[in-house]
Amino acid sequence: MGIFENISPLDHRYRASEPELWEELSSVLSEEGYLRCQLQVEAALVQALANRKVCSQSVADEVSEACRKITCAEVQVEEEITRHNVRALVNCIRERVSSEAKPYVHLTATSVDILDTARALQMREAVKRWVVPKTQALMGVWLDLAEAEAATPQIGRTHGQHGVPITFGFALSEYISRMGTRLQAMASGAQDLRGKMAGAVGAYNASSLVFSDPMQFEIEVLALLDLKPAGHATQIVEPEYMTDLLHSVVSAFGVLANFADDIRHLQRTEIAEVGEEFRAGQVGSSTMPHKRNPWNFENVKSMWKAYMPRMVTVYLDQISEHQRDLTNSASGRFIAEILAAYVLACQRLAHVTKRLSVDRVRMLANLNMHGQLISAEPLYIILASMGHGSAHECVKDLTLEAERTGKTLGDLVSEDESLAAFLQQMTDEQKTIILHPASYTGASEEKARSVCTYWRRQLEEVDA
Amino acid sequence: MGIFENISPLDHRYRASEPELWEELSSVLSEEGYLRCQLQVEAALVQALANRKVCSQSVADEVSEACRKITCAEVQVEEEITRHNVRALVNCIRERVSSEAKPYVHLTATSVDILDTARALQMREAVKRWVVPKTQALMGVWLDLAEAEAATPQIGRTHGQHGVPITFGFALSEYISRMGTRLQAMASGAQDLRGKMAGAVGAYNASSLVFSDPMQFEIEVLALLDLKPAGHATQIVEPEYMTDLLHSVVSAFGVLANFADDIRHLQRTEIAEVGEEFRAGQVGSSTMPHKRNPWNFENVKSMWKAYMPRMVTVYLDQISEHQRDLTNSASGRFIAEILAAYVLACQRLAHVTKRLSVDRVRMLANLNMHGQLISAEPLYIILASMGHGSAHECVKDLTLEAERTGKTLGDLVSEDESLAAFLQQMTDEQKTIILHPASYTGASEEKARSVCTYWRRQLEEVDA
Amino acid sequence: MGIFENISPLDHRYRASEPELWEELSSVLSEEGYLRCQLQVEAALVQALANRKVCSQSVADEVSEACRKITCAEVQVEEEITRHNVRALVNCIRERVSSEAKPYVHLTATSVDILDTARALQMREAVKRWVVPKTQALMGVWLDLAEAEAATPQIGRTHGQHGVPITFGFALSEYISRMGTRLQAMASGAQDLRGKMAGAVGAYNASSLVFSDPMQFEIEVLALLDLKPAGHATQIVEPEYMTDLLHSVVSAFGVLANFADDIRHLQRTEIAEVGEEFRAGQVGSSTMPHKRNPWNFENVKSMWKAYMPRMVTVYLDQISEHQRDLTNSASGRFIAEILAAYVLACQRLAHVTKRLSVDRVRMLANLNMHGQLISAEPLYIILASMGHGSAHECVKDLTLEAERTGKTLGDLVSEDESLAAFLQQMTDEQKTIILHPASYTGASEEKARSVCTYWRRQLEEVDA
Amino acid sequence: MGIFENISPLDHRYRASEPELWEELSSVLSEEGYLRCQLQVEAALVQALANRKVCSQSVADEVSEACRKITCAEVQVEEEITRHNVRALVNCIRERVSSEAKPYVHLTATSVDILDTARALQMREAVKRWVVPKTQALMGVWLDLAEAEAATPQIGRTHGQHGVPITFGFALSEYISRMGTRLQAMASGAQDLRGKMAGAVGAYNASSLVFSDPMQFEIEVLALLDLKPAGHATQIVEPEYMTDLLHSVVSAFGVLANFADDIRHLQRTEIAEVGEEFRAGQVGSSTMPHKRNPWNFENVKSMWKAYMPRMVTVYLDQISEHQRDLTNSASGRFIAEILAAYVLACQRLAHVTKRLSVDRVRMLANLNMHGQLISAEPLYIILASMGHGSAHECVKDLTLEAERTGKTLGDLVSEDESLAAFLQQMTDEQKTIILHPASYTGASEEKARSVCTYWRRQLEEVDA
Repeated sequence: MGIFENISPLDHRYRASEPELWEELSSVLSEEGYLRCQLQVEAALVQALANRKVCSQSVADEVSEACRKITCAEVQVEEEITRHNVRALVNCIRERVSSEAKPYVHLTATSVDILDTARALQMREAVKRWVVPKTQALMGVWLDLAEAEAATPQIGRTHGQHGVPITFGFALSEYISRMGTRLQAMASGAQDLRGKMAGAVGAYNASSLVFSDPMQFEIEVLALLDLKPAGHATQIVEPEYMTDLLHSVVSAFGVLANFADDIRHLQRTEIAEVGEEFRAGQVGSSTMPHKRNPWNFENVKSMWKAYMPRMVTVYLDQISEHQRDLTNSASGRFIAEILAAYVLACQRLAHVTKRLSVDRVRMLANLNMHGQLISAEPLYIILASMGHGSAHECVKDLTLEAERTGKTLGDLVSEDESLAAFLQQMTDEQKTIILHPASYTGASEEKARSVCTYWRRQLEEVDA
Repeated sequence: MGIFENISPLDHRYRASEPELWEELSSVLSEEGYLRCQLQVEAALVQALANRKVCSQSVADEVSEACRKITCAEVQVEEEITRHNVRALVNCIRERVSSEAKPYVHLTATSVDILDTARALQMREAVKRWVVPKTQALMGVWLDLAEAEAATPQIGRTHGQHGVPITFGFALSEYISRMGTRLQAMASGAQDLRGKMAGAVGAYNASSLVFSDPMQFEIEVLALLDLKPAGHATQIVEPEYMTDLLHSVVSAFGVLANFADDIRHLQRTEIAEVGEEFRAGQVGSSTMPHKRNPWNFENVKSMWKAYMPRMVTVYLDQISEHQRDLTNSASGRFIAEILAAYVLACQRLAHVTKRLSVDRVRMLANLNMHGQLISAEPLYIILASMGHGSAHECVKDLTLEAERTGKTLGDLVSEDESLAAFLQQMTDEQKTIILHPASYTGASEEKARSVCTYWRRQLEEVDA
Repeated sequence: MGIFENISPLDHRYRASEPELWEELSSVLSEEGYLRCQLQVEAALVQALANRKVCSQSVADEVSEACRKITCAEVQVEEEITRHNVRALVNCIRERVSSEAKPYVHLTATSVDILDTARALQMREAVKRWVVPKTQALMGVWLDLAEAEAATPQIGRTHGQHGVPITFGFALSEYISRMGTRLQAMASGAQDLRGKMAGAVGAYNASSLVFSDPMQFEIEVLALLDLKPAGHATQIVEPEYMTDLLHSVVSAFGVLANFADDIRHLQRTEIAEVGEEFRAGQVGSSTMPHKRNPWNFENVKSMWKAYMPRMVTVYLDQISEHQRDLTNSASGRFIAEILAAYVLACQRLAHVTKRLSVDRVRMLANLNMHGQLISAEPLYIILASMGHGSAHECVKDLTLEAERTGKTLGDLVSEDESLAAFLQQMTDEQKTIILHPASYTGASEEKARSVCTYWRRQLEEVDA
Repeated sequence: MGIFENISPLDHRYRASEPELWEELSSVLSEEGYLRCQLQVEAALVQALANRKVCSQSVADEVSEACRKITCAEVQVEEEITRHNVRALVNCIRERVSSEAKPYVHLTATSVDILDTARALQMREAVKRWVVPKTQALMGVWLDLAEAEAATPQIGRTHGQHGVPITFGFALSEYISRMGTRLQAMASGAQDLRGKMAGAVGAYNASSLVFSDPMQFEIEVLALLDLKPAGHATQIVEPEYMTDLLHSVVSAFGVLANFADDIRHLQRTEIAEVGEEFRAGQVGSSTMPHKRNPWNFENVKSMWKAYMPRMVTVYLDQISEHQRDLTNSASGRFIAEILAAYVLACQRLAHVTKRLSVDRVRMLANLNMHGQLISAEPLYIILASMGHGSAHECVKDLTLEAERTGKTLGDLVSEDESLAAFLQQMTDEQKTIILHPASYTGASEEKARSVCTYWRRQLEEVDA
C-alpha cells in the first residue's frame, strides 16, 4: 500500500513533505511505537519480580527477549480473537516464552497499568527526542536573527497602525522569551509524567495478594522505567499530568502561530519588510507568476487551527466515572497526533525562518512613512515631563496641523511661541528624537540583547 | 511499510479494526481519493471548453484519458520541484497529452477552482456513499428494535432517578426522531455543496479574457459535475456550505454519543437491562474474567469526544483575509477525518446494537423496585384533576408515610378518609394505574409506533 | 446597586456602551424576560384546558391575569423555600388565583414543559426582534456601500499579497452573499424551534390520565403560542432544533468577524484604503495622539473569539442520559448571552461601517504599486488561449526580467520577438488590460451588482 | 434596576442563589473591582516617580487620594466623550488633583501598562481570596469524608461494571490527590502573574525619555504592587502567564466536574449509595414528589460544560499581531467570569458534599450482588502466582459454570480436582478473600489514609 491511501493528512501529505522527520516520529508516536513502550513495561514488570526473587532472572531475561521481538501485526492477529488489545499482547508474549516463565508474564498487572505507563514513556520520549530539541532549534534560529537585527529600526505596530519605533531584533525577542517559558513547561511536563502498577481499580488488589508492600513494588517497577507513580490512581493514572503536558504543547503551538502570523503580515505587498525565500523551480501561484506567498507561515497557522481545539478533548478526558470508564480510550490515542503536528510545524518554521530575507531599507522607509508624526509621542512625553499642563492635547493639535498643512512636526514646534521655553530646555538627544523618529527606539536594542543572552544560557541548561 | 507505522489512530487502529470499510472510505477520503476528484474537475473544465468549441473534442478526450491515469506518487515527485500541488498536477496532465492539448489544460482556472470544487465532490460522494447509508442502516437497526420493544415497560429516568414508566421502544424512538432530522440535514447539506470556476480572486479575471460570459462558463463546467456555484466566491468557495454540512455531521455524531451513553449506563451492573453480546474468545478484562464491558458503546462516545471539538477548527476556517489567506488550507484537509470517524462510529454502533440483548424481566423488576411509589405522580394528577386543592402536598406526605411505614401507596390511599370521596370517583383504569405502576406508561407505545412509522416512510424517501 | 458591580462584561461594559439596545435585549434575554415567557406558557396551558371545557374560561382568565403580574423577585423568594424554580413559579400563580382556579394551574405539566417551551419562545422572539432585523440593517449598510463602490478598482489580495484587480464593491458583496445564507438560516432556525407539553419523561403519562388524546392536547397548547412539538420528546425538547439555531448564529458571527478582520487590515497604515471615522473628542491612543485605531472592528473580532467557542457547550448539551439528566440546565441558560453578544456586535459593525471612509485614490495607488506586473496573469492567459505552448513559464521569465531591469511588462512584450505573432492577434481590449492593470477587474462590477440586486429582493422577502 | 434584568446568568440566577459570595466576588471581579486595580496601578506609578524625586511625595499623595475616590460611573461619563477607557480614567484623576500634580499622572505609561498590570492584580487577588480558599475548603470536606469512610467497603467500578472492591474513602481520596495538584498550580499560577510598565510597544520608548534605566523603573513600579515584569513585553504582557493560570483553573474545574459526575451516578436509584440531603420544604420534582434529584451535582457538571470551552478563547488570545492588535481586549474581559463560575461551583460542591449521606449498608449490599464472582480476580492471581499455567482461562470457565449452575465460586473451587493441590497451598487470608469478596479491598484503606495525611499537611503549607 502507499501512503496516499491514508486518510489523515498527517499520514499522507505531511508525511510526504517531511519524510525523514516523519519516519523518526513514527518510530515512537505510531501504533508500533506505542507497542514498543508497552513491551518495555511488561518486561520491567517481570524484571521487578525477578529482583524480588518471585521468579528467576532467566525468566525475566526470557520475557525481555520476547518483548523485543513482538510486532504489531502479530498482536493484531491475536486481538481479532480476544477483542482485547493487552490480553492479545500478553498472549503473544506467553507464546514466546517457556512454561516456567508463562505465569509471571503480566502478573498482578491490569491492562491499563501497561497502557498508561507506556503512554507516559511514549510521550516523554517524543518530547525528549523532538519536541524539546526542535523547539530549541527554532529558538536558535530566532536567537541568531534577533541578535543580527538587534539594532535594525522598525516601526512598532499596534492595531495594525504605526505606533512608535522598535528594532526588528526586539520584535523577534518577544517570541524567544515566550517560547522559553513554553520550552521549560514542556520539558518539565514530560519529566513529570507518571506511570502506575496499581491494578484494575488502583487499589493494588491483585498485587496485595502477592506482596505485603504493593505500593513499594509499584515504585520498583516504575523506577526501572525512570518513572514515578502519581499520588493516587484508579484504573488510570491521574489525568492532570498529561493534561498539563498537552497544555504546554498547545500553548507553545500558539506561540508558533503568533510568530507565523506576524511574519506573514510583514510579508504583505504593502509592507514587504521580510520575505520567504523561494527555491528554484518553485511556483508561487498557478496563475499569478509574480507572487511570493508566505505559504509556510500560513501552513503553521493553519496547523495550529487544526490542533489547538483538540485541547477540548483533553479536558473532556479528565472526566471518567468511578474507577474509570473507557470513554477516554479512543480519544486518548489521538494525543500522539498533537505532538507530531507540533514537531512538524516547529521544524517547518525553523527551516523557513532560517532563510528569511530581511529588507532593512524597506523597514526604515516604512518607519519614516509619516515623517515626524511618529515623534508626537516623545514630544508629548518630553513636554509633560517638563511640566507642560496639557501636553497631550497640545501635541494632538500640532499633529492635526501637520496633517493639514504638510509641515513637519519639528517646524511646527519651532514656530509655536508657547513652546519656546520648553524647546530651550530640551537636550540635544531629545531634539534628535523629535527630528529623527528612527532614533526613538527606546530600550529596544538593549532589551533584545538581554533576552537573547538570557535564553542562550537557559537553552544550554535545558539541554543538559 | 505497514499500517502500524502510521501516526493517526484512524490510519492504524481503526483501519485494522474495520479493514473493508476503511478501504472503501480511503478510496474517496484519502489523498488519492481527493486527487481523483481534482482530476475530474480538470477533465470537466476541458470538456466544457470543447463544448464551447474553444478546443476540439479530441483534446478533451485526451485530457480526460490522462486524468484517469495519474497517481499521487507521480504528482508528489513533481510537487517536490514546484512546491505547489496544483501546478504539479497540471504539469503531470500536460506531460501526458499532445502539444495541441497542452494549452487547454487548466485554462482560465486558478488552483483553488480545482481544489475547492474537488473538495465538494469528495465530501458529497462520501456523504452519499457512506454517511447517509450507514446512518440509515443504524436507523434501521433502531427501528427494528424500537418496534420489537414498543410495548416493553421500562422505568423512565431523569437525573438518574426513577421517574415514571415508559416503554423501551419509546426510549429508542427518541434517537430515531433526532437522527432523522440529522439525516435530512446531512443529505441536503451534501447536496448543497458548491464549486467554483471563478479564478484567482473570484472575479473571473482570467475567464473574462476568454469568454464574454464567464459566469455562464462557470455554470457549464460545474454542471458537468452536477454542482452549482455559490452566490459569490473569492479565491475560495463561500465557506458556509461546508460549515453547515460539518455541523450536521458533528451534531449527528452527538446523537450517536448520546445513544451510546444511554445504552452503556443501562448496562451498569446494578441496572443490567441490556447487554453487549460477547463473541467466543473475547476477553472482557485481563484480570476480571467475569466482566462484560460495554466497550463498543464507550468507543463511540470516545470518538465523539475526539472529533466534536474539531468543529472549532471549522468555525475558525470561516475567516480568511481579503480574497483569501491560506490559513484554512492545512486545517481544511482534516475535515475528511471527521467524516471517516463518523462513518466508523456509525457502523460500529449499528453492528453492536443489532446484537444487543434486552432483558425484559430485569426492566420490569427495576420498574417495580419502589413498588407503588412510582404511582405518586398519577395519584397526584388524578386528585388534582378532580379538584383536590393541595394534591401535590397530600401525595408527597403519603409517599413519606409509605417510606416510613413500609405500607403501599394503594393501602394508604384506601385508609385515608380525606381521600375517600376522590377514590369513589376514580375509574377502574385509574385505580389500576395506582396499583400497577407498570401500566402507567402514558402514550409511550403509541408514540414509539408513530415515530417508527413516520421514519420508515421518510427513510425510503431519502433513499430515492 | 449599579451596573458596574456586575461580573459579566455583557452586564456592565457592553451594557454601558449601548444602553438602549441593552435595555431592549434585557426585556427578553434576561431572567425577567425568560420568566415572562414561562408565564405565557402557564397561561396558554390553562387556556387550552378552558378551550376543552376542562375548566371554565373565567379560570383561564384569572390565571392569565395572574401571569401578567408576577415578578422575578416574587418567584425568587418562593424559590428560596422550594429550591425548585418552576414549583416556585406555580406557587406564585396559585397564590394569586381563586381556589376554583388553583387545581388547573400547571395541570398535567412537568417543569420542563414550561421551561423548554418558554426557551423556544424567548429565543424566537429575540431572533425576530433583533437578530434578524440587526442583521438586515447591517446588510443594508453593506448593500449601500457595495453599490456605491461597485466600480471602484482595488487590488485583489490573496496570502496578503497583491493578486489581480477587483472592485471594492465586489469585495463587499462577498459578505452580503455569505450573510444572506446565514440570515435565512437564523430566521428559519428560529421559526423551527419546538415546544413540548409531554410530561416528565415525554410519554404524556400525566396528560394521558386526563385526556384520551394527549398528543392532540399538546398540539393545542403549543398552537396558542404559535409553536409545534418536535417528533419526540423526553423530559426535554429534542436539542437539535436549538443546536441548529445556535449554529446559524455562531456561523453568522463568523461572517461578522471575517468582515471586521478584512476592514481592519485595510486600515493598516501601509494600506490605508478605508478608515474608521473618529468622533470629536475621541482619543486614539493615550500616548500616540496621531493614531486612528480600528478599535470597533477589533472589538467585533474579539467578541467572536469570546462567543464562538461556546458552541462546544451547545454540542455538549446534546447529550443527556435516559429521559434527561440536568447537566444541560445551567449551561443551557447561557445561550441567551450568545444572542445578545451577536446583536451587539452586529449593531456596532453596522454603525461603524456606515461611517466608513473609503479612499479611492489610495486604492488605485495601491493597485498600481507594481505597475504592469499585475498584468502577468492576463498576459499568460491571453498567450495560452492563443495556443502558446509554455505561456506560464514565458510570462514568469518576463516578470523576473521586469524586476531585474525595471522595464515595464508592456515594453518587454513589445521587445520580445517570439511574442510578435501573438501581439498582432491581440484585441485592443486585451492590450489595454496589459498596459492598464486597473482595467483588469474581470466581472467584478457585474458580480457585485447582481449579488446586491439579488439580496435586496431577498431581504424584502425575509421582512415580509 | 433589579438583578433579574441582567442577561448573564452569573449576574442574575447565580447571584441570587449565593448573594453573599457573589457580593464578595463582585468587589474584585466586576468592572468596579477592575477599576480599583487600575487606580492602584496609577497611584503606584506616581509613587515610584516620587521615590525617584521626579515629583514630590505630596504629588504622589494627592494622586493616591484621588485614586481612592474615583468611581466607575464617573469614568463612564468621561469615556462617552473620549471613547477611550484609560484616557477617561486619567482625565478623571487629573480633574481631582492640583495643577502641580497633573503632569505626573500616568507619566510615561501607555494604557495597557495600566490595564494589564491591573488585570494581574485583579486575578491574583481573586485567586488568593476565593479560588484557593474555596478549593481548600472543598478539600477539607473531602478529607473529612475520606477519613471517615477510609475503611468502608464499596465495589470498584470500571466501565460502569462491578470490578473488584475498594473502600469509599479510597474513591474519595482520588479527588483529593488530583485537586491537590490543581491547588498548587492555581496558587503558583496566580503568584506568577506579571505586570508591565514598558510603554506603547513594550520598548520603553516613553520612559527612556525620562529615565536612563527604564527597565529598572518598571521593576520599581511593579515592586510597589508586589509584581514582576515578564521577560519581554509588547504593548501587552506575555499572555502565557495568564494562559497557564486559566489552564490551572479550567483543569481544576474538570476535577470538580468529575467528582460531581461520580457522586450523581452513585445516587442513581439502582445504586443509591449516597444521597444529597434535602431541606424541609424543598421540592424534588414538580410532578414526581418522591424523587430526590442530585441537582447540585448536576449543576456543577453543567457549569463546567459552560465554562471549560472558554479555554479556547484564552488560546485564541495568545495571538496578537506585531506589537499587539486589540482583538484580545473584549475577549480578555470575560476571564473574570471563569474565576467567578469556578468559585461558585466550588462552594456549592463543598456545601452539598458536607451534607452528603453515605449508605454503608447499601454499599456492602451492592458489593455482594454477584456473590463470590467478584473473587474471580483474586482466585486467578493466587493460582497464577502459584504457577498455574492457564489460571485466567481456568477461572473464566469457573465463572461461566457458576453463572450457569448458580453454585458459588468457592464451592466450585473445592469441587474441582485439578485445583486441589493449589487449594492446599493457600493461606487462610487468601481463602478468606475468595469466600468474602468484601475483604478484597487491597491497599484501599492504607492508600486513602496516606493520601489524606499528605494533603492535610500540604494544605497547611499552601495556607501559610
